[in-house]
Amino acid sequence: MDAIRFSDDALYLLDQTRLPAQEVWLRYTDFRQAAQAIRTMVVRGAPAIGITAAYAYCLAALSGEDLERAEAVLRASRPTAVNLFWALERMERAAARCGGDPAALIAEARAIHREDVEMNKAMGRLGAEVVPNRARILTHCNAGALATGGYGTALGVVRAAHSQGKVSMVYCDETRPLLQGARLTAYELVRDHIPATLITDSMAAALMAQGKIDLVVVGCDRMAANGDFANKIGTYSAAVNARYHGIPFYTALPSSTIDLSIPDGSGIPIEERAPEEVTHLAGTPTAPGGVEVSNPAFDVTPHTLLTGIITERGIVYPPFAEKLASLFSV
Amino acid sequence: MDAIRFSDDALYLLDQTRLPAQEVWLRYTDFRQAAQAIRTMVVRGAPAIGITAAYAYCLAALSGEDLERAEAVLRASRPTAVNLFWALERMERAAARCGGDPAALIAEARAIHREDVEMNKAMGRLGAEVVPNRARILTHCNAGALATGGYGTALGVVRAAHSQGKVSMVYCDETRPLLQGARLTAYELVRDHIPATLITDSMAAALMAQGKIDLVVVGCDRMAANGDFANKIGTYSAAVNARYHGIPFYTALPSSTIDLSIPDGSGIPIEERAPEEVTHLAGTPTAPGGVEVSNPAFDVTPHTLLTGIITERGIVYPPFAEKLASLFSV
Repeated sequence: MDAIRFSDDALYLLDQTRLPAQEVWLRYTDFRQAAQAIRTMVVRGAPAIGITAAYAYCLAALSGEDLERAEAVLRASRPTAVNLFWALERMERAAARCGGDPAALIAEARAIHREDVEMNKAMGRLGAEVVPNRARILTHCNAGALATGGYGTALGVVRAAHSQGKVSMVYCDETRPLLQGARLTAYELVRDHIPATLITDSMAAALMAQGKIDLVVVGCDRMAANGDFANKIGTYSAAVNARYHGIPFYTALPSSTIDLSIPDGSGIPIEERAPEEVTHLAGTPTAPGGVEVSNPAFDVTPHTLLTGIITERGIVYPPFAEKLASLFSV
Repeated sequence: MDAIRFSDDALYLLDQTRLPAQEVWLRYTDFRQAAQAIRTMVVRGAPAIGITAAYAYCLAALSGEDLERAEAVLRASRPTAVNLFWALERMERAAARCGGDPAALIAEARAIHREDVEMNKAMGRLGAEVVPNRARILTHCNAGALATGGYGTALGVVRAAHSQGKVSMVYCDETRPLLQGARLTAYELVRDHIPATLITDSMAAALMAQGKIDLVVVGCDRMAANGDFANKIGTYSAAVNARYHGIPFYTALPSSTIDLSIPDGSGIPIEERAPEEVTHLAGTPTAPGGVEVSNPAFDVTPHTLLTGIITERGIVYPPFAEKLASLFSV
């Protein structure tokens, strides 16, 4: 399964806001519309956002736009996932090398895309080792093929473990407010014939208390130098509950998600999204007018709640700061 | 605000499935339809279910139905909230005393209703004492006027504390899957001009980590003799998070919610509801076909996570079993 394609000088995105009911591919030739697609979550997931931004940068080059201005527009699309900035910086360096030649930029964007899939597969292979036999795995949000270049980070680990016959059940937090767990993760798992049970976010703790969860694995939108990391809102609650119940808790991420420039999680910008995501369902109000709303798209989980960090270069265990620095410093 | 009325030999229920968009009162003269209203959650909340069942028992008497059979139908409407069984047993004793005279039974049901409101007000008065100044309170689901005869259990505490000027903000967990926090609690608070912020259930932990929650207070559907208690799914997660962050966690309940016949929480029956409550929003599927679903309506929070139990007879602190027995044994 993939959600991002580039061909004939156009970017194609599978509209993730309409899944699972409809599979609609949208075509982009204007980088501004691609930026809008990131903002409105037609495409989402830290690695997928980075890949999309790289291709959008190519669209700007193909249209002869000012690349510096295009980069600024793309950088402003969403604030939390660091892959966006990582990919744009890589494209900027490529542009400096090739003088903005569109063909060379497209080759660079395709490399970013291809390498992401390779990193996911490496992560899956390595991460599967921490999955016990007959594992019942909890995941939150969608860190699957749809969130990446393909295969997935957290779901890459699930896919690799499943191919080894080790997955008994994947519990999917539905992930309010936008239901990426229900709409995207459950959809990916059902398509791949991996056993999946959908739950509301608040049920995970009760399942843990009943001894029904062996392992939690989630994705990541940005990891600070000490291992603190931002991920979809609700990840922190899952981490606290995993700790309380003595359940191993992992995040899986490619090196493009690690931001060594930020010492700890307090420095990660957290996007606040529109209140209507919480107060409305499919356009219908489900809350009274006049109520205040808090709608942070992400929360920060401190590294102290992490059992390990699954990366394409190996699984990192505490002390995280030293090991992240030695594995990922340039 | 009230949601249950009895006049001219008919039961009137405010249809809580349509709030807050529409305020529709439904009229019942057939006890079977009243039982169906409990099942479909036209009325919900442990004390409100008990009061409704008492009035429905009167409807059966007014129609000359077999009261034993009516009681069996009403008992089968929902399994978890013990107030249902408590109220029906009280009505059965009244029927034995008065020979099934409808006027006497209506008087008994009205007494159950009136006493519930009085218990709520006593609980509010007592519970307000544990609320600090400028309190930021988290609550889950709806334990308000709509869930009771009026005023509320957990929201009764909030109302009493607010009338003393002590409430800075009430954070309302939206409470998936049926959104009682968004639809009912936020609605009650906005109507009463109490500051309210709506959040998804998974955001509460992040607010706690940011030091924005001073106190958690929730309702209760059934409390066992040792203080373990069943309440809306997600309560347990809130309790674990409160403990992890060192935040006081209270439940507020009238004596009619205490079931001393059950030694601990493992004996409380937990209702499993239809998967469509999780997989559909307003009739539209939001999850792929073929996914399994877990949808327990309640979870059990062990007494060890409770700071105190707010009742109409006083606030109970550990050791709970001894104190509950001495306060509530007949």
